[in-house]
Amino acid sequence: MKADRLQKGFEGCFIVLDGPDGCGKSSQARMLTDWLRRQGADVVGFRDPGTTVIGEKIREILLSPAHDAMTTSTEVLLYMAARVQLWSESIGPALAAGKSVVMDRWLSSTCAYQGHAGGFGVEKVLAVAGVSLERIWPDLTIILDVDLKTAAQRLNRELDRMERKGDDYHGRVREGFLKLAEGRPGFAVVDATANPETVHEGVLAAVRDALAKGRGL
Amino acid sequence: MKADRLQKGFEGCFIVLDGPDGCGKSSQARMLTDWLRRQGADVVGFRDPGTTVIGEKIREILLSPAHDAMTTSTEVLLYMAARVQLWSESIGPALAAGKSVVMDRWLSSTCAYQGHAGGFGVEKVLAVAGVSLERIWPDLTIILDVDLKTAAQRLNRELDRMERKGDDYHGRVREGFLKLAEGRPGFAVVDATANPETVHEGVLAAVRDALAKGRGL
Repeated sequence: MKADRLQKGFEGCFIVLDGPDGCGKSSQARMLTDWLRRQGADVVGFRDPGTTVIGEKIREILLSPAHDAMTTSTEVLLYMAARVQLWSESIGPALAAGKSVVMDRWLSSTCAYQGHAGGFGVEKVLAVAGVSLERIWPDLTIILDVDLKTAAQRLNRELDRMERKGDDYHGRVREGFLKLAEGRPGFAVVDATANPETVHEGVLAAVRDALAKGRGL
Repeated sequence: MKADRLQKGFEGCFIVLDGPDGCGKSSQARMLTDWLRRQGADVVGFRDPGTTVIGEKIREILLSPAHDAMTTSTEVLLYMAARVQLWSESIGPALAAGKSVVMDRWLSSTCAYQGHAGGFGVEKVLAVAGVSLERIWPDLTIILDVDLKTAAQRLNRELDRMERKGDDYHGRVREGFLKLAEGRPGFAVVDATANPETVHEGVLAAVRDALAKGRGL
């Protein structure tokens, strides 16, 4: 495929990289962004929660280890608040200007963490999203799947409040991501246990596959 | 009525004072709390948003004049997040222990401000509340109704982000409170233009009326 074909193909397209803590999504998001730029696409990358001034403050509240008393419902609402603000200030305007957007996490995280692992309920997460988010799903959500042991080895630093929730919780998070992706159009699961370059090839294969199928890309 | 009768009547009862900025609800909440204590009731008072450590941090984000970019949807989710946390940490346990709870604001504020004045939609506010709050409505919500001019004279200090939204917005907030109270059981509207003692008498009349009608009180 020629660069101009791809550039047109990626215009205003919205790709999310998501998965359990330690799956390598931040690195993969950067690698995908760089690759898209080399294809001539105009790309911006954001992280959720965060990016906006308001979102970064919400992120601090969410991840502070001092906030052990936080309920799962509070988490759902705070993550969604940061997301709504991010859409309004950054993602929406970028897509409207014809840019491509690569996200580090999105609604899929709230479905897997709070909805599935935390017991809030995926349908209830989607109900909150339905009345507050202008757009719920991106063109493509790539779930980077990784086992707990590999994920833990990669998180070799001080853990935040969500990362500290223990193996049972994080096992259910992984399960939540896989269940969410199951049979849902616009989702792809990529094995993320290998080295970053191999995982990147898997990500590109998912992007090319989505492009070939014309899923908004 | 004798004190022991009232004490039993107020056990585990949940009363909210709400209304536009400058309606005097914080003072009235204190006066009502003191009155209930004089009747022998075991009462605690909380403010929404706030009270909990997490809720006070959410309150700071909501009211900071630096956060002009905040969307109405973000406001809804942040107010609801603080409220869910407040229920879980403070209101729920207090009611379960048989105490009475007097609130300075509650869900009625989000309905009037974001739902009605901000255009988010009261039904959508109630949809978010329905999936996240364990209990939506108190036993009695007293709306302190006041005209814009009187309210503005009372707010003789530096205004927060919500208070700065201008006369049109605050006119719609007042309208939102009155519409919400209209024909809804468990609501009472009290004229709050007079001096605090006179308004307090109106509040007590609303409480006695609710008690006589047996609305959970």
